[in-house]
Amino acid sequence: MKLYDCASAPSPRRVRMFLAEKGIAVPTVQVDLRGGEQFTDAFRAINPDSTVPVLELDDGTRIADAVGICRYFETAHKEPPLMGRDAAEQGVVAQWQRWAERDGFHAAMEAFRNATPAFKTHALPGPDEYEQIPALAERGRARVARFLERLDARLGHSEFVAGPRYTIADITALIAVDFAGWAKLKPPESLAHLRRWHGGVSARPSAKA
Amino acid sequence: MKLYDCASAPSPRRVRMFLAEKGIAVPTVQVDLRGGEQFTDAFRAINPDSTVPVLELDDGTRIADAVGICRYFETAHKEPPLMGRDAAEQGVVAQWQRWAERDGFHAAMEAFRNATPAFKTHALPGPDEYEQIPALAERGRARVARFLERLDARLGHSEFVAGPRYTIADITALIAVDFAGWAKLKPPESLAHLRRWHGGVSARPSAKA
Repeated sequence: MKLYDCASAPSPRRVRMFLAEKGIAVPTVQVDLRGGEQFTDAFRAINPDSTVPVLELDDGTRIADAVGICRYFETAHKEPPLMGRDAAEQGVVAQWQRWAERDGFHAAMEAFRNATPAFKTHALPGPDEYEQIPALAERGRARVARFLERLDARLGHSEFVAGPRYTIADITALIAVDFAGWAKLKPPESLAHLRRWHGGVSARPSAKA
Repeated sequence: MKLYDCASAPSPRRVRMFLAEKGIAVPTVQVDLRGGEQFTDAFRAINPDSTVPVLELDDGTRIADAVGICRYFETAHKEPPLMGRDAAEQGVVAQWQRWAERDGFHAAMEAFRNATPAFKTHALPGPDEYEQIPALAERGRARVARFLERLDARLGHSEFVAGPRYTIADITALIAVDFAGWAKLKPPESLAHLRRWHGGVSARPSAKA
C-alpha cells in the first residue's frame, strides 16, 4: 500500500491527519505539485485527474479522493471512529464534513486560486485549463468570512464541529481555516469559540502530520 | 421520521432514488422552493441553511444534507448496499460519487444558477445573496461538456459509474446529467456508452421516485 502525497498541500493533509488520528502509518510517495509532476504522463497514468492524494492498495486498486481514502480506512480500521458511530451520528458527521468542505475549503480555494498568479490558467484543480475569474475570488472571500462566523457560532454550543467528539468534520474544518489563511483570510480575534477550538485541534499530534 | 422534500428539485431526488433502491418508504413534507418557503423563519428553524432535503428522526435529530441522509440509511438498512460493500469498494464508490457531484452536478449548477433570471441574487443555494457571475455560467458549461465526455469514456469500460454494480455514484451522475438538461446541456448523441447507461438507470423504478 502507498499514498501519493504532497507534504505542503491541504487535500492530502486531510488524509495524513485522519491516518494519524487512527494511528496508522502508510508509506508515502511525494508528488511535486509546484514542479507540475501531477501533469506528467507518468502521474496521469496513476490519476487522470492530476490530483493528490491517491491511495494505491496492494492489489492495485486506487482511490483518488481524500474522503474516499478516509472512508476506506474508517471501514478497515474502525477505532477510533472518525466518521460517526451509529447511523444517526454518521449522517450528522457527513453533513458537517460536507458543509466544512463546501462552504469552507472550496470557498477558500475559490478565493485563493482565482487570485494567485501561479494559478492563472488553472483556477480549478485538475488537468483542464480554466482562467481565473476575479469576481469568483471576491465571492470566495465573502463566503469564507461567513463560514468563519458560522463555525464560531456552531462551536459556541458544540465542543467539536459535528458534536461532542473529534471527527473528520474537524479535520476538514481545520484544513479550511488554515487554507483560508493562505488567501490572507485569518479568523477575526473576536471569534473566541473558533479560537478555542482551533487551538485545541492544532495542538493534537495529528495536526503536524 | 419525516423527510423535508421538494418533488421538483434535484438534491432531494437523490435521497428519494436512494430510498426507492433500498425499498424504504419515508413520509415527506413538501417545501415550496419556488415560493421561497425555504427562506421563512419557520423553515430556517428546521434548517438554517435553507435547503432540502432534511431528514428528521423520531428523536428530533436532523440531517440536513443529501449524502448525509443516504449515509444514515446505508448504515441503518444495509441491503442492498449502495455505497460499496468492503472497505476498498466503499472508497472507490465515494471517489466516483464525489466526482459526479463536483464535476457534474455542481458544474451544472454553476451553469444553471448563474444564467437563470430567477436566481439573479441567489447564484448559490442557501440564505445568502450572491450575484450571478456570467463567466461562471460559461465555465460551468465547459465543465459539464467535459464531464459528459469523461462519463461516457468511463461507461465504455464499466457497466455502472463506480464499477459492476449500481451505487449512489449512479444516482448522483443521473441527477447531474438530468439537471444539466435544465441548462440545455444535453449529452451529444455520439456519446453511446452514456446513452446506454442513461437509458438503463432511467428505466429503473427509482428514477421516477
